[in-house]
Amino acid sequence: MEIDLIVKHAQVYNTFLKTFEQKTVAILEGKFFYIGQKDLEGLTAKQVIDAKGKYMIPGLIDIHMHIESSMMPPSIFSKAGLAHGVTTIVADAHEIANVFGMEGIQSFMDEKTEMDIFYAVPSSVPSTTNVMETTGGTIGLNEVRELLASPQIIALGEAMNFKGIVSEPDSLIRQILKETQQVDPFIPIEGHVPRVTGIDLAKFQFAGITADHTQQTPESIYEKISSGMFIELQKKSINKENIDMIKQYEFYEYIALVTDDIIVDDLLKGHLNANVQLAIDCGMSVEQAIYISTYTPARRMRFQDRGAIAAGLKADFILLDDLNKLIISEVYKDGQLKYQKEDTFDYPETKPVFPAHFYQSIDCKKLGAKDLIIKVEGEKALCNVIRIQEKGTFTEHVQRMVPIRDGVLDWESSGLALILVMERYGKNGAIAFGLVENALTEKGAIATTWAHDHHNLMVMGTSAMDILKAQHKVLEMQGGYVVTREGKLTGCCPLPIGGIITDAPIEKTGKQLKEVRQAMKDLGYINTNEIMSFSTLSLPVSPVLKITDQGMFDVRTQVQIPLIEEIK
Amino acid sequence: MEIDLIVKHAQVYNTFLKTFEQKTVAILEGKFFYIGQKDLEGLTAKQVIDAKGKYMIPGLIDIHMHIESSMMPPSIFSKAGLAHGVTTIVADAHEIANVFGMEGIQSFMDEKTEMDIFYAVPSSVPSTTNVMETTGGTIGLNEVRELLASPQIIALGEAMNFKGIVSEPDSLIRQILKETQQVDPFIPIEGHVPRVTGIDLAKFQFAGITADHTQQTPESIYEKISSGMFIELQKKSINKENIDMIKQYEFYEYIALVTDDIIVDDLLKGHLNANVQLAIDCGMSVEQAIYISTYTPARRMRFQDRGAIAAGLKADFILLDDLNKLIISEVYKDGQLKYQKEDTFDYPETKPVFPAHFYQSIDCKKLGAKDLIIKVEGEKALCNVIRIQEKGTFTEHVQRMVPIRDGVLDWESSGLALILVMERYGKNGAIAFGLVENALTEKGAIATTWAHDHHNLMVMGTSAMDILKAQHKVLEMQGGYVVTREGKLTGCCPLPIGGIITDAPIEKTGKQLKEVRQAMKDLGYINTNEIMSFSTLSLPVSPVLKITDQGMFDVRTQVQIPLIEEIK
Repeated sequence: MEIDLIVKHAQVYNTFLKTFEQKTVAILEGKFFYIGQKDLEGLTAKQVIDAKGKYMIPGLIDIHMHIESSMMPPSIFSKAGLAHGVTTIVADAHEIANVFGMEGIQSFMDEKTEMDIFYAVPSSVPSTTNVMETTGGTIGLNEVRELLASPQIIALGEAMNFKGIVSEPDSLIRQILKETQQVDPFIPIEGHVPRVTGIDLAKFQFAGITADHTQQTPESIYEKISSGMFIELQKKSINKENIDMIKQYEFYEYIALVTDDIIVDDLLKGHLNANVQLAIDCGMSVEQAIYISTYTPARRMRFQDRGAIAAGLKADFILLDDLNKLIISEVYKDGQLKYQKEDTFDYPETKPVFPAHFYQSIDCKKLGAKDLIIKVEGEKALCNVIRIQEKGTFTEHVQRMVPIRDGVLDWESSGLALILVMERYGKNGAIAFGLVENALTEKGAIATTWAHDHHNLMVMGTSAMDILKAQHKVLEMQGGYVVTREGKLTGCCPLPIGGIITDAPIEKTGKQLKEVRQAMKDLGYINTNEIMSFSTLSLPVSPVLKITDQGMFDVRTQVQIPLIEEIK
Repeated sequence: MEIDLIVKHAQVYNTFLKTFEQKTVAILEGKFFYIGQKDLEGLTAKQVIDAKGKYMIPGLIDIHMHIESSMMPPSIFSKAGLAHGVTTIVADAHEIANVFGMEGIQSFMDEKTEMDIFYAVPSSVPSTTNVMETTGGTIGLNEVRELLASPQIIALGEAMNFKGIVSEPDSLIRQILKETQQVDPFIPIEGHVPRVTGIDLAKFQFAGITADHTQQTPESIYEKISSGMFIELQKKSINKENIDMIKQYEFYEYIALVTDDIIVDDLLKGHLNANVQLAIDCGMSVEQAIYISTYTPARRMRFQDRGAIAAGLKADFILLDDLNKLIISEVYKDGQLKYQKEDTFDYPETKPVFPAHFYQSIDCKKLGAKDLIIKVEGEKALCNVIRIQEKGTFTEHVQRMVPIRDGVLDWESSGLALILVMERYGKNGAIAFGLVENALTEKGAIATTWAHDHHNLMVMGTSAMDILKAQHKVLEMQGGYVVTREGKLTGCCPLPIGGIITDAPIEKTGKQLKEVRQAMKDLGYINTNEIMSFSTLSLPVSPVLKITDQGMFDVRTQVQIPLIEEIK
């Protein structure tokens, strides 16, 4: 019998024994055919590879992630992910859904990719309600029904409206959860369950949510797993304390590693493989770290056709030069070589094609100097202010006194930055104003349409000139990230597709985004992740005080907060 | 907040910690709502139960079984199973499919039951081909497609044609496997993989089969699990050697306990609970034995809504008086009490209703004395003979010399039993003859329509008078099991629905079947399970020599074997 490929002399990972064994692996029609001893019982092959003792592990499976965080469309992301050994993902395309609704999701699902990409139904578009934020698209019950009928859809994406889930029986998210379980009682339902405990945690589970991917502590891991939740560990949850908890209770069957969001410049350095490495560095055995990035994620998503090196499963695998450093030598998908060490990222032969209007999607006015004048009578105004923290994406709500000069709020001399969120879907032209503390120390501005989740145009600056320049540039580019300093453009990363992704080469985009980060730092922006920090100032499910095109909101109470609290 | 039911003071099994903890369990709308400490944070309930320290475990889940083996329709089986703590099953209705095809399967699926019954598509109806056996119904590609569209169908039932799977790329079973994976790439596919090893095992897996429930040895468990198969342990695989192997390698995640076939008289004594008890008696910890009869079977079948006592999951649970003896005190399904200790089996309020022709389904001739005369010229005949073994259902193929008297094969004086299989679907009137050794020592006969899998009318006896009497009685009853001895009826169990099941009370049927067994023993029939031994003489996928309405067959080669090899 002739088969397609034989890989000899590999140290093959056995998922079920959690060991490596010297084996010979036969592959036929893109699937593992037989994993045998040296003697393959008379099999011959079209191609034979000598792995020369390299380690062979299954392709990595990332079951909770958002492709848009890479700033690339699926077909280009696929190339980048494969280079890091990721062969299957489950993507929740809720960013593109916020911009283009069903058409956005469908455009992603229609893309041909070498990596297997499955999708979760975005369950929270908009993240709150259309009273609190204006989005390009919305996902309601009808859209959920339609999406669930697609074979590419295998999960419900993260349900994140805490208030809607815990205390509003008739909220849209509760209706979506109910409908989803009626259509498929066994579908995996992802949750966004940060710091939720006790009976509130039970209420999330009772609504049907069976997994959480938010930041964990040892205590939250213990409580959630022993309560029956599946835990998806992203980078910020992978630390020694959490790994120790997992090891102590042997929780390996109920966890998986995921990425959630990896921005393009980080993606150049690694993807899920970096989290596997981090877990090992934090004290998890290599064998367990591989298990929870291949087998348990496959099982969580009900895959029966992948996740291990075993006969009948998809021949998705990685050859590693080194086990403790996970140095990737080669990556195979469906038995085909897709990446070899020192390959540069390559690109799909045909450029992704999106509808023409995807490239002309920023529909809002060009700001003029007059637009930045906030008229107010009085001596000074007590203002509600968003205070940025130096770690993470939470903010503080503070109040600061701002002088009034000639009937105008003199924000430029206040030491605060002015922030505007401009509705960009041509729907209502709303512009919301806010003030931000601990933002910029220099004269400059940052503008972006990569503003979670609604992706309206957000611009923040300490001088009117810079704000105008940054806003004009981002409008001209039809989306992206822009930094200006004293009237000059110091950082620029175009994201012309829907204002959130680009089909430019990944190295180029990665380099541009690094420059944007540096330019933000140069303006005095301090955060462990400047991009995520700024881009989530607009996210009204991320505590505490955030701003959308509809105004500033206290995220916990969903109450609107005025810019000016009191005039003195 | 008011909920439906609170169970206090229970020792609750935690699946994820594999321990028991004193907890209070709140139930709402048929689901677990919250598993808490004594203080349920202000919850009140319509009903409160004091479990008085009883052990609370999830309802048992049997993912590989055939309801027809109980000789009862689903609605009555459901009552019996619930009494043994079984709250969910996945049934492969391939017996009723052999008799009535799609109409048979549909009649089962249409029955309302208190237990949750899911179905696997019967993949091998007939078990071989319609050249080798005549069945009432057949399941081809169209039927498979139609069944896969049903929400009650969640798996493909056991694929059992070894030759078709391993060496015939275009066999019907290979086509069915392919089609099934195309419709649902992630569906669990059950296999019948006895004594299959090495590259042949890989070929089963390559065809899509991911589980095996046949008899295991420690070696087969190690090989199959480490090759990626899920192992379903039925009673004959639960022994100390196998449990030791599982313990040594901690294979708990890749195994489940199942029943496969439990005949009515055994069902009176226990169901899956008996196998859990047996696993404990063989040295498995109680906690692990519960795990592999609740959680791993649920996960194997992709259930996300049951299998543990956790918020959001179905409130299917058992209260046990004793942990090591698994004495069932109460059984709850969807939060409702369904069984209490010392309840007798009760019956559905409405009798199951099947189409009228299901009760008149045995269409074959009434045998006369002439029919048992096998004319042959010569002195003596060398005959091919089925030799029954005293353990298991395999037979031997032997040859014996039988005298010829007056041109007639004198089987009555040969020390062998005559066996006939009569086509009973009114299709072709075929009658096949065979001889059996090590069958009966006394004058008598056994007749049945419960003859796997085709369920034609099979009768075997050592005297013509007894054969005629038994065949007439089984015809008159329109199916069932009959034993005669020296012209007298000594055992009788009517199975009037399709000739394989009955809606009579389970205790009555159980008692009748016990009498049949005893009557068989009294005729000298020796086997650890007389019913399964006799009823599988007709099964042409069970080695070695078997007989269908189309003749005797060597099961391994599928070659027909004549009764008379040579005349001397």
